[in-house]
Amino acid sequence: MTVRNLFLLPGDGIGPEAMGEVRKIIAYMNEAENAGFVTDEGLVGGSAYDAHGAAISDADMAKAMAADAVLFGAVGGPKWDAVPYEVRPEAGLLRLRKDLQLFANLRPAICYPALASASSLKPELVDGLDILIIRELTGGVYFGEPKEIIDLGNGQKRGIDTQVYDTYEIERIAGVAFELARTRNNRVCSMEKRNVMKSGVLWNQVVTATHKEKYSDVQLEHMLADAGGMQLVRQPKQFDVIVTDNLFGDMLSDVAAMLTGSLGMLPSASLGAPDAKTGKRKALYEPVHGSAPDIAGKGIANPIAMIASFAMCLRYSFGLVTEADALEKAIANVLDSGIRTGDIMSAGSRQVGTAEMGDAILAEF
Amino acid sequence: MTVRNLFLLPGDGIGPEAMGEVRKIIAYMNEAENAGFVTDEGLVGGSAYDAHGAAISDADMAKAMAADAVLFGAVGGPKWDAVPYEVRPEAGLLRLRKDLQLFANLRPAICYPALASASSLKPELVDGLDILIIRELTGGVYFGEPKEIIDLGNGQKRGIDTQVYDTYEIERIAGVAFELARTRNNRVCSMEKRNVMKSGVLWNQVVTATHKEKYSDVQLEHMLADAGGMQLVRQPKQFDVIVTDNLFGDMLSDVAAMLTGSLGMLPSASLGAPDAKTGKRKALYEPVHGSAPDIAGKGIANPIAMIASFAMCLRYSFGLVTEADALEKAIANVLDSGIRTGDIMSAGSRQVGTAEMGDAILAEF
Ligand SMILES: CC(C)[C@H](C(=O)O)[C@@H](O)C(=O)O
Ligand SMILES: CC(C)[C@H](C(=O)O)[C@@H](O)C(=O)O
Repeated sequence: MTVRNLFLLPGDGIGPEAMGEVRKIIAYMNEAENAGFVTDEGLVGGSAYDAHGAAISDADMAKAMAADAVLFGAVGGPKWDAVPYEVRPEAGLLRLRKDLQLFANLRPAICYPALASASSLKPELVDGLDILIIRELTGGVYFGEPKEIIDLGNGQKRGIDTQVYDTYEIERIAGVAFELARTRNNRVCSMEKRNVMKSGVLWNQVVTATHKEKYSDVQLEHMLADAGGMQLVRQPKQFDVIVTDNLFGDMLSDVAAMLTGSLGMLPSASLGAPDAKTGKRKALYEPVHGSAPDIAGKGIANPIAMIASFAMCLRYSFGLVTEADALEKAIANVLDSGIRTGDIMSAGSRQVGTAEMGDAILAEF
Repeated sequence: MTVRNLFLLPGDGIGPEAMGEVRKIIAYMNEAENAGFVTDEGLVGGSAYDAHGAAISDADMAKAMAADAVLFGAVGGPKWDAVPYEVRPEAGLLRLRKDLQLFANLRPAICYPALASASSLKPELVDGLDILIIRELTGGVYFGEPKEIIDLGNGQKRGIDTQVYDTYEIERIAGVAFELARTRNNRVCSMEKRNVMKSGVLWNQVVTATHKEKYSDVQLEHMLADAGGMQLVRQPKQFDVIVTDNLFGDMLSDVAAMLTGSLGMLPSASLGAPDAKTGKRKALYEPVHGSAPDIAGKGIANPIAMIASFAMCLRYSFGLVTEADALEKAIANVLDSGIRTGDIMSAGSRQVGTAEMGDAILAEF
């Protein structure tokens, strides 16, 4: 029997509640289809800090490294706002990304038709929206050195961060974007600030060269990242796949997510390179939303982003494409049927809690 | 008689056409009110490159330094896409900002009521929108060293940019934001990525300290820059003054500008520190829009952003507040009357060219 090892890191805030609904789906798949999921669980973020004084323990990192896939909830909350920088909740997530070498972050920005009217954009601009943002996740200003605050004396300090990209890092993320574009509408838009940043000049050159060498069948466009932000707001449907660096990806994917009106529902996948021997990729799946400490523990959080992240896991880590499609379809159907958690509630719909939403999706699955 | 020295840098694309309409207003003010404007003109961007092989000549830089204010049109176009990095059109603008030490970039994102429906956002979200983005303009990743591409051999290159902020740089831009907030709704939102960047940690600390020391009467909020981008799209009217660094400011102000539906109409001011003796600030005024090479030379470009930039010049460089108010009111009145350039044309309005739009505003002034 296939064994599929999942390592669950529910994290803080609404993370554990959302993860609970995924657990139901895993149990169902094991029972109904002998899917062979074996789960283990660890701590990350503030809850890891409270237990171990670190945002993730070495033992849990080792488990994450050994798993076929990591499911990640959310981290952070006001309780940990004043902890030292090195052990802040986010450090756990950043260590996972870096140590697992999850360089490719896939962030679909889709608009569930049932929710088009929830967008702050005019519905006709977002109805049917389906963008895939590919964000480089292990390089750039997030990890470059020096990264420090220096005391200059006289009450002056200097804060320094370093944006660094090597050719191979750009090549491999561009490759992911082009490959995925081929399974979609075959268009890639690469975004940087080559008019201001040398890393942007290199980014532009390497994406262009990679395209020319291996992917000239895909349509490639370049856009300055600031203009890209504008165009996302002006006419988001012009995009198919967007590829960009770690920091621009952070900003642009958040803007794109908000456009859809489906923010609480968007998943993401962070993938490593295929293993030379087994072809397997390390992977982590997480909702785009945060830990929402204000509503944590109340049983009202929307579990859809977490469930949709598990659908991405089925697709990208286990090749269970039929199951992934079915789970995504189940989410859309439940939304179509008018069932809503509080965050996406609108007149005429039926408001439910976290567990009821999870159950409704499972029933449709 | 007062002499007011203006140095005009129309630049490329639609820059010269837009500047032409400002010239009319200057001539009118000299005649009607003895305003004493004395103008000189230089080259910047691609047109400077064509003439001198540099994006701005040393002679023109000297004139910019000596002027009371610089009016800047726009730079760039496909003609110069392949010129070397050091002399690309943008280099002229960046040199002006750096050498004149114009650290404070003021970007109002206002929604002209007549144009609320042109926004891609639902009109009720942007109608009456009035945000002031204060972007740090002489520091951060735009100017930090090292900034280079290194050849690593084996076909590998490394692109490096450096984000650097010193305490005093953050202090002075925060001061500008707090001072201006006092003249508005008394609220400042500071945006950075302190959860990832050390410069963000320092930014957050210095803004907090500056607030506590000198501006505790102003309401201060901190937001992560990615969340800020989201909130701008979700509910832009929650903001009054936003203060942020050079790169985040570039992105966020473009998103904010696009929200208003008035992109082609938004001005900006870039200010230096007050001179210790005279109290005068060096200053440059420029539209937020680019050089729009596709419509250049056709007499159809919208001159409003350039004219509104001149209104900011009247206000901030010459203290001509009544005149600035009147010019801004003239723009709003002309829009209310249904006169439109092609970029903002809508059914039921009357379409005019650049010169007619300028004339209409002058007639209302
Ligand atoms: C939590 C934070 C470190 C993270 C990031 O900046 O990458 C988040 O904003 C994201 O987009 O996943
Ligand atoms: C032209 C370019 C160098 C400039 C910038 O990046 O600052 C522009 O985008 C702006 O916002 O003024």
